[in-house]
Amino acid sequence: MGRLTGGDPSLLRRINSAVVLHALRATDCATLTEITRVTGLSRPTVEGVVEGLIEAGYVVEKAADESVERRQGRPARRFRFRAEAGHLLGVEIGAHRVAALLSDLDGRIIGAQAKDVDETASADERLERLRTAVAELLRRAGVARGSLRAVGVATPGIIEADGTVRLGTALPEWTGLRLGERLSRSFKCPVLVENDANAAAVAEHWKGSATESDDIVFVLAGLSPGAGALIGGQLHRGYGGAAGEIGALHLLGREVTPETLLSTTGEPLHPLDEQAVAEVFAQAREGDQRARAAVDRFIQRLVHDVAALVLALDPELVVVGGWAAGLDGVLEPLRGELARYCLRPPKVALSLLGEAAVATGALRLALDHVEQQLFAVEGTMTARR
Amino acid sequence: MGRLTGGDPSLLRRINSAVVLHALRATDCATLTEITRVTGLSRPTVEGVVEGLIEAGYVVEKAADESVERRQGRPARRFRFRAEAGHLLGVEIGAHRVAALLSDLDGRIIGAQAKDVDETASADERLERLRTAVAELLRRAGVARGSLRAVGVATPGIIEADGTVRLGTALPEWTGLRLGERLSRSFKCPVLVENDANAAAVAEHWKGSATESDDIVFVLAGLSPGAGALIGGQLHRGYGGAAGEIGALHLLGREVTPETLLSTTGEPLHPLDEQAVAEVFAQAREGDQRARAAVDRFIQRLVHDVAALVLALDPELVVVGGWAAGLDGVLEPLRGELARYCLRPPKVALSLLGEAAVATGALRLALDHVEQQLFAVEGTMTARR
Repeated sequence: MGRLTGGDPSLLRRINSAVVLHALRATDCATLTEITRVTGLSRPTVEGVVEGLIEAGYVVEKAADESVERRQGRPARRFRFRAEAGHLLGVEIGAHRVAALLSDLDGRIIGAQAKDVDETASADERLERLRTAVAELLRRAGVARGSLRAVGVATPGIIEADGTVRLGTALPEWTGLRLGERLSRSFKCPVLVENDANAAAVAEHWKGSATESDDIVFVLAGLSPGAGALIGGQLHRGYGGAAGEIGALHLLGREVTPETLLSTTGEPLHPLDEQAVAEVFAQAREGDQRARAAVDRFIQRLVHDVAALVLALDPELVVVGGWAAGLDGVLEPLRGELARYCLRPPKVALSLLGEAAVATGALRLALDHVEQQLFAVEGTMTARR
Repeated sequence: MGRLTGGDPSLLRRINSAVVLHALRATDCATLTEITRVTGLSRPTVEGVVEGLIEAGYVVEKAADESVERRQGRPARRFRFRAEAGHLLGVEIGAHRVAALLSDLDGRIIGAQAKDVDETASADERLERLRTAVAELLRRAGVARGSLRAVGVATPGIIEADGTVRLGTALPEWTGLRLGERLSRSFKCPVLVENDANAAAVAEHWKGSATESDDIVFVLAGLSPGAGALIGGQLHRGYGGAAGEIGALHLLGREVTPETLLSTTGEPLHPLDEQAVAEVFAQAREGDQRARAAVDRFIQRLVHDVAALVLALDPELVVVGGWAAGLDGVLEPLRGELARYCLRPPKVALSLLGEAAVATGALRLALDHVEQQLFAVEGTMTARR
């Protein structure tokens, strides 16, 4: 029973190889007989493919578990996927810090490293800081740079398909930076660049608050909120990669900026001055009237921006992350106002991943890329198991 | 060379049948030899399938064109798809009118009928008005009701998957109406219900201003604007069918309603009173200061709502339709403000289909349904031609 009739024999080999890898990866280990049954391939084909995968380093024969196998005569050889055959990096480049996560080919995290960086740092300084963090991370984990199969990078701004920052006002010298190209010099594997809120949406869907829903909006709440959306489980980037950039909404209609909204002095706050913002929230908790009014204005603005997203997209779930999510009094008003004004109010949840969301999403994007290369047989495999 | 190995033989017959129909539909007419070549099926299979399609009425042998064929000996039999083998209806149920379009299986429009209806009409009256319009349309076109293969219906409101109006404030007695079920009593074929702005988006993509783009937002501009979006050429309904319902945005933050914005008297206009609105716009053109201020407020609000959609979705193109699109002075300010505030401003175009957009989109949705049933072989066929 051939899977394909005719066609390119090397393509067929590659597909069969992906089918076997996919089957092995879904299980702890398997015999040739089991692989043959699960994949529907012939025994000789499976033997040839497994041999090739062992040579390539992706599969290894597992030492027989003697206590179980011995009494049943000669034990069948068992094979397992070598998740340690390659590694992935997920990287966040933010205003205040750079962070990196390292995983094996199963996405299991085996190391993390973060470094503070000044919000005024130049692009060169920021990238140098990242390089140092990555080098330390690889060294501590004992992973060779050449073992990296893909690097995911998440950062604020509108990111073009080639990894260039089309617009990025939060970080100095960011607009126009060919970030993908710059980072590619440090790695031999593909480097994938993504907007930070988009990456966080992917992360919450992978292992955060949104594992149960495929239609979500992630709000990176700060003075100027950004957002990422999954539709049917897929990232919605928009036609030009600018979807979810709702922070510009307050520019319309002569409404005041968030920096002014949160000020208690008449002087606008600095957009990245999280300390000043935290103080305003603290003063509000202590009963300061001006601070309370400022926080009310700020939350009203956030609710408005999120409501615009919800009305446009109608997600099942809104996940709130970013620093504003950690402040008291953001989630409940948001939930209440959305319930009041949205025709079909979504569920609202806090980010589970918190500060790790952006780098985790970057890692997941790198993993997606490798899975497409190694394991994907068009759409057919997802239906198989 | 089998297309499939093993599997359900009746499914295989159905797929082969769809493959042949698809090939015939894409051409004027074809010989068995041509069908065999284009489909990759065997000659006996093609002969059997074509015979079956002739019996079912979807294919007919074309009379030979004698002048061409005779001199080359016995002419090859040529077959063509019978687009007249079935018909489709596209229906709009609006606040002020009901309208219906009739087409053949190729989507070629062969009749249209519209009737005014009072904005205060009950649901029963409105549906009765529609039934009359459809009966007249079928009678005039000489098409039997039994020839209808699908009916698409578009109407304001949030529409659930089963055709129930979850929320529809624009039409009396609309919220909670089981519209799909009600209309199914009048037709033996499937009835598909869709939000009006969604249908209009589909229509502009099919044969309006948006044929060149797959990422569009259609704005049904009125006192309370609605919108429909296509992402990658597919309708984005949202998790609960409420995507694009941006009209509620003005409820937030104590901003005044559009009815108040456009009033020159202090008394809010009626949301459906298009006459009163047109008068305000006319007065503005004549230089009346209060009317001008009212129009400015109205346009500012529309720009804000559309900007919220654009920031959330990042479409390539915004198409503006609905009655406000016909008023002077809406398009240019919209274009200018979007260019000013959106990080990646979209193109902005007027609806080409105008008043016909909603019913045309409903027709296209009916056609999509029939095409899926008759011609679709999963995803494979689109790549074929």
